[in-house]
Amino acid sequence: MGRTSDARSRILVAARSLLGQRGYSGLGVAEICRAAGVPKGSFYYFFESKEALALAVIDAEWTAERDDWERILGTDAEPLQRLRQLLEATEARQRAGQGSYGAVLGCMFGNLSLEMSNQADAIRLRLQEIFEAEVDLVEAVVSEAHRRGEVTLVSTRDAARSVVAQLEGQVLFAKLYNNPSQLGAVWLSCLALLGVHAGRHGDRLPHVQDVADE
Amino acid sequence: MGRTSDARSRILVAARSLLGQRGYSGLGVAEICRAAGVPKGSFYYFFESKEALALAVIDAEWTAERDDWERILGTDAEPLQRLRQLLEATEARQRAGQGSYGAVLGCMFGNLSLEMSNQADAIRLRLQEIFEAEVDLVEAVVSEAHRRGEVTLVSTRDAARSVVAQLEGQVLFAKLYNNPSQLGAVWLSCLALLGVHAGRHGDRLPHVQDVADE
Repeated sequence: MGRTSDARSRILVAARSLLGQRGYSGLGVAEICRAAGVPKGSFYYFFESKEALALAVIDAEWTAERDDWERILGTDAEPLQRLRQLLEATEARQRAGQGSYGAVLGCMFGNLSLEMSNQADAIRLRLQEIFEAEVDLVEAVVSEAHRRGEVTLVSTRDAARSVVAQLEGQVLFAKLYNNPSQLGAVWLSCLALLGVHAGRHGDRLPHVQDVADE
Repeated sequence: MGRTSDARSRILVAARSLLGQRGYSGLGVAEICRAAGVPKGSFYYFFESKEALALAVIDAEWTAERDDWERILGTDAEPLQRLRQLLEATEARQRAGQGSYGAVLGCMFGNLSLEMSNQADAIRLRLQEIFEAEVDLVEAVVSEAHRRGEVTLVSTRDAARSVVAQLEGQVLFAKLYNNPSQLGAVWLSCLALLGVHAGRHGDRLPHVQDVADE
């Protein structure tokens, strides 16, 4: 049992790395097994198909990322401050990926959404759930800022979705230009998307001065 | 010569359609030739490699899209109105693609950026040029609105880039949810990103009322 679960976990680790670097379509089961040091014959003992493996990789990635998001968005800091920390953590993660692989790998969920969502229904549905959960997490902190009168919004849901869309769009640029610093622009864009207004309650938010005035 | 150039053009048309639907990695030269009705042996007479074909497809797609963008952004309408028309045209194009293929295909440049940009330098550079050109086109109209006092910005370049990022992020959602209506949200997000303020010169922009107030 020890060796068995070890092989499964080695396949998962190898697939997560290869999928992040190369996407789904260009990847073969044989290559994954070679990278994992597992005989190809045993692959189907652990996974029904390459798609089933991809779903397991997506779940592992999301479990790790959701833990990060919940930890960062769940602190005692002010809500917009927590949002900013989330964006900074995203940039740091892309920078770490660039350090490890020599290239900004982007967001696995965004990558697979564009590569696969119209080709594999199970993957599409899983990715939809993940993005809804991301929007949920952002919406919670946006709603908190809204109750505090720090943001001006018609709909906290739409605003949260536009924040996640902005993040995905700028992660696309970070990958395209192989430059995580692209993500430095996301914070000011998010403030604009949230209609952040300084001075409403007689005090200024710490990071708003850049966008408050012309 | 007539038949020769016809075969090249059939390969291009088939590749453009297949690349849009399935991405790059999952696509083989044999399949493209079959769809084009061209013998596989003649493929390399026209294209040095699959990558060279992809670059030709990207160029064809960009030529068509740039023509659209320049036409829409070059009318006599007010600058923000032109920007809105660009976003509406994007939604209409995604809707038409869904009608033809049964699935929202997204933006070919965004799709290939996430699938390929860290795997093929020539493709990465071409896509960078295209996105810079898109940001140029958006920046021109944003600058015009800025001179008219209709937008509040620190940097027209950063704002234009954030608009294109927002569009790419929402096109990702449109593809993921197979729902072009996702793009209906882009206009209000762009107004927010541009810091559009109504009433600055005593009049209201026609579409700003939704975001001007809480």
